[in-house]
Amino acid sequence: MYLLVISENYSIYLIMIGAASAEHYSEDFTKVNRMQRVPVIDHNGFILTESIAILKYLSRENVIAESLYSKESKLQARIEEFLEWQHIGLRLHCAMYFRVVHMDPILTGRKSDEKTIQGYKRRMMMALDDFDTKWLGRGTAFIVGETPTVADLVAACELEQPRMAGFEPKDHFPNIAAWWPKVRDHFAPHYEDAHVILNKIINKMDRAANSKL
Amino acid sequence: MYLLVISENYSIYLIMIGAASAEHYSEDFTKVNRMQRVPVIDHNGFILTESIAILKYLSRENVIAESLYSKESKLQARIEEFLEWQHIGLRLHCAMYFRVVHMDPILTGRKSDEKTIQGYKRRMMMALDDFDTKWLGRGTAFIVGETPTVADLVAACELEQPRMAGFEPKDHFPNIAAWWPKVRDHFAPHYEDAHVILNKIINKMDRAANSKL
Repeated sequence: MYLLVISENYSIYLIMIGAASAEHYSEDFTKVNRMQRVPVIDHNGFILTESIAILKYLSRENVIAESLYSKESKLQARIEEFLEWQHIGLRLHCAMYFRVVHMDPILTGRKSDEKTIQGYKRRMMMALDDFDTKWLGRGTAFIVGETPTVADLVAACELEQPRMAGFEPKDHFPNIAAWWPKVRDHFAPHYEDAHVILNKIINKMDRAANSKL
Repeated sequence: MYLLVISENYSIYLIMIGAASAEHYSEDFTKVNRMQRVPVIDHNGFILTESIAILKYLSRENVIAESLYSKESKLQARIEEFLEWQHIGLRLHCAMYFRVVHMDPILTGRKSDEKTIQGYKRRMMMALDDFDTKWLGRGTAFIVGETPTVADLVAACELEQPRMAGFEPKDHFPNIAAWWPKVRDHFAPHYEDAHVILNKIINKMDRAANSKL
């Protein structure tokens, strides 16, 4: 729903369009992006969609620090190996769980049935387990080596989605629990700034849940 | 299941591991690729997975012709916009239809139920319609401009999958019907060489279907 980009001088580019307001389905937005999808950038008239393609382009244009997206071929390949894997390997399953548990009830006024939720939860757990053991848990501090890259940023932001559906990945996966605060710390205060609305929603849900106890 | 790469001098790299034989789940293969997935390359000891990450790497290493994968930043961004979109936009839905209609009955000995098939078919039709109208059908001969790129090659290979499940995308989508032969022609004879086994299976299924008439 948003794209968080930290540039060389740690200025922040946050492209956010209220997905809840369905702004991206409007006629004006369709003129900019025929796919009616966020995120999208307009870089001096060059309009580009797809978050990973945008990250690559901004890296080539030197908007993103080389330390976050290496230009050395093999190191870059390691980062991109994750960026390509995460579409179906991680993002799809976190997003679908979020949609079935959090969004569908808002849109339809009905809670999704338990069997459907459990199917999506099972697939998300497998994806999170792959991430926890096969990408993390290899003895390095971050996904690719000892310093953070865009791979960590993309992964961390994806894991925020299930939190909005009441599921905390850190409570179930030890490598995620150890890695996540390092990513948040590295990108402080921008990471938290970008998640203000998300965290407000989560806090509100927590209070509502507690008041029912 | 395979990766087709055409290099500058039109030599062909075809990495194919019999998915049907489940070779990629073997212990030896897991040593090469912890994700137990194909395709994977071993480039002088550098092991890399994920087809799109492999294409990018081989492009940087000048194994793939620049005409197929531009190094000009904006043109490259247009190619990558498609490569990133297709994961969930196209590949997921073509692969799932193939799996439910063709693979699951082979693996389980049972035909998938009609309601499940129709759900996957509906999602595949929407994906193919997006591809037909939003990526093709913009007045250019290929996805990005008047000459083929790796985007066309990736898309064309994905569309072969539903054919194995008895669905011919060209019979339903006019822009796909006009574009597909141009891709096959451009990459002849390698494209057909890479699809020999697939076409043999499709022909065998056609004969079996006709003999039942």
